[in-house]
Amino acid sequence: MGKERVAIIGSGNWGSAIARIAGQNAKIHADVFEERVPIWVFEEQVDGKKLTEIINTTHVNAKYLPGIKLPENVVAVPDVIESVKDATALVFVLPHQFLGGVLQSLEGKIEKGVKAISLIKGVDVEGSDIHIYADVIEKRLGVSCSALSGANIADEVAIDKFSETTVGYRKKEEGELWQRLFATPNFRVNIVADVAGVSLCGALKNIVAVAAGLVDGLEYGNNSKAAIMRIGLIEMKNFCLEFFDDVKVETFLEESAGVADLITSCLGGRNRKTAEAFVKTKKPFDQLEKEMLNGQKLQGIHTAKDVHNFLHSRNRIEGYPLFETIYQICWHDTPVDKLTARL
Amino acid sequence: MGKERVAIIGSGNWGSAIARIAGQNAKIHADVFEERVPIWVFEEQVDGKKLTEIINTTHVNAKYLPGIKLPENVVAVPDVIESVKDATALVFVLPHQFLGGVLQSLEGKIEKGVKAISLIKGVDVEGSDIHIYADVIEKRLGVSCSALSGANIADEVAIDKFSETTVGYRKKEEGELWQRLFATPNFRVNIVADVAGVSLCGALKNIVAVAAGLVDGLEYGNNSKAAIMRIGLIEMKNFCLEFFDDVKVETFLEESAGVADLITSCLGGRNRKTAEAFVKTKKPFDQLEKEMLNGQKLQGIHTAKDVHNFLHSRNRIEGYPLFETIYQICWHDTPVDKLTARL
Repeated sequence: MGKERVAIIGSGNWGSAIARIAGQNAKIHADVFEERVPIWVFEEQVDGKKLTEIINTTHVNAKYLPGIKLPENVVAVPDVIESVKDATALVFVLPHQFLGGVLQSLEGKIEKGVKAISLIKGVDVEGSDIHIYADVIEKRLGVSCSALSGANIADEVAIDKFSETTVGYRKKEEGELWQRLFATPNFRVNIVADVAGVSLCGALKNIVAVAAGLVDGLEYGNNSKAAIMRIGLIEMKNFCLEFFDDVKVETFLEESAGVADLITSCLGGRNRKTAEAFVKTKKPFDQLEKEMLNGQKLQGIHTAKDVHNFLHSRNRIEGYPLFETIYQICWHDTPVDKLTARL
Repeated sequence: MGKERVAIIGSGNWGSAIARIAGQNAKIHADVFEERVPIWVFEEQVDGKKLTEIINTTHVNAKYLPGIKLPENVVAVPDVIESVKDATALVFVLPHQFLGGVLQSLEGKIEKGVKAISLIKGVDVEGSDIHIYADVIEKRLGVSCSALSGANIADEVAIDKFSETTVGYRKKEEGELWQRLFATPNFRVNIVADVAGVSLCGALKNIVAVAAGLVDGLEYGNNSKAAIMRIGLIEMKNFCLEFFDDVKVETFLEESAGVADLITSCLGGRNRKTAEAFVKTKKPFDQLEKEMLNGQKLQGIHTAKDVHNFLHSRNRIEGYPLFETIYQICWHDTPVDKLTARL
């Protein structure tokens, strides 16, 4: 058997942080992986230079992970089809709004037997249908797709601060392969047979992080914040058990992807911070997205809307009072001090 | 059947906060409870006056819960035997080091059929024996004893900020009685058939809070803190399942007494704060106890020692690497940057 050839699709903050680890491990586990790790970089100009050129000469992603050296075997490639040529192990780590276009480019060009893993946050909701992105990738490309999620603020992972993550796999040998690609002494990778649970945790926790930010804005204190986080974790678990097959309860309550990612998102994180500002400044979210997030969308409030639409179409809103309250506060005129009224 | 006659044994910060709620609810549920709620107050002089007199005239516990009005039906009693006279529902809410003396005074004076509830933190370890205080109370007084624990910083509960708690009961009707005594719209009480789990959460989480404080002192960031909290929660659960019968996994992972109390203790709280200072100031804990806690003991490090001694006597230290690491850092010369080495 030949060596695994890894390709990384996406080079934002998290993509660059994870490429650094994958590049290091491809060298360390040279018996398993080809050393060269191509990374697809959406070409843009940074200070008058092409971002791919900057990465391939300075080995720093100056725009999205400044100050962090990438291993030299991580090679930036501006063409997505070129980046995955001959790859046997595809790492999808890009914002979900770009996934459709990338899959369209790659469709029909990926060999049978190729493995993939999704590090994409969010869920794909259309009416009463809901899909995780690992399933979307699997269906479009005909590959087996795992998922990785955990308490992983990219800037902390990039400087080797101790953290953990969770890989949900379809087949155990695939989980073990991804573990070998990503695990380091300070980035612990646990593997579980639960692709959906791992993926959904990463999406739904952002709603809870918005709730935690509202509590902070209201200055309700740590008891309230802990209570809201506990209720959120239970709604996350119940949602997944109700609407997805084969989800494991332990993923939510024992894994980094579950309780630990919830904690880190509710302590720091942009969802928490922006929701706090929503209460304190009384500015609407679209204005805060411009002012605080460079115009990027705040995931938590959009996931709250997706989940509301889905639950509405299934006539199951009353089963998820915290999710619904966050939706009503963020998208309608429900006063924020009604946060606990329905719980 | 006559009405329940509540007595509260203990009047510190938490005892006073919970007496305020019990006094209010005794009036609201006048069909169930006698209105008068005696509270045993360890007599001391405050500004030249007896603390019981201050409470009974101003209705404020000026020493331990200043600024908060207690209902007038909460009556301070300096004699512990007098305080429980004719009581049918005993609330034990005092530091564990005073429990032995109180039980000695009460032994033989409590009627059969009286119910009790323990709000006492900690565990009673002697060699290879470990007991929760609800069991200690039950055995000494011959009463059925529930337990209450949760994400309940007393000062926040005292001003009606939204929070939750958990009552572990032996018999469901007892759980429901305590729920009626303590539940308010902003203090939600969930009841579970798990006295040991609820009690042990309240003790063991203090070890994890020390660990969280060490992470804060080391400035490892939120990923690491979330990882340590997750590992701590799993060790709490495993410890209880290994050494106690009838503990329910859900208590740790879904109840306020479990995950939520862990969160609030690791966000705020004296254990976290003092452990952070231990790293930053390099002062020993006994000095920090004097400087930061008015000479009071830091529960987390003492529980870590109790748990270490117990695990050592059972030859099971290797099953609990986080608990053991905290013990070694706090009580021996293990450098704090070895925090994650054994995990």
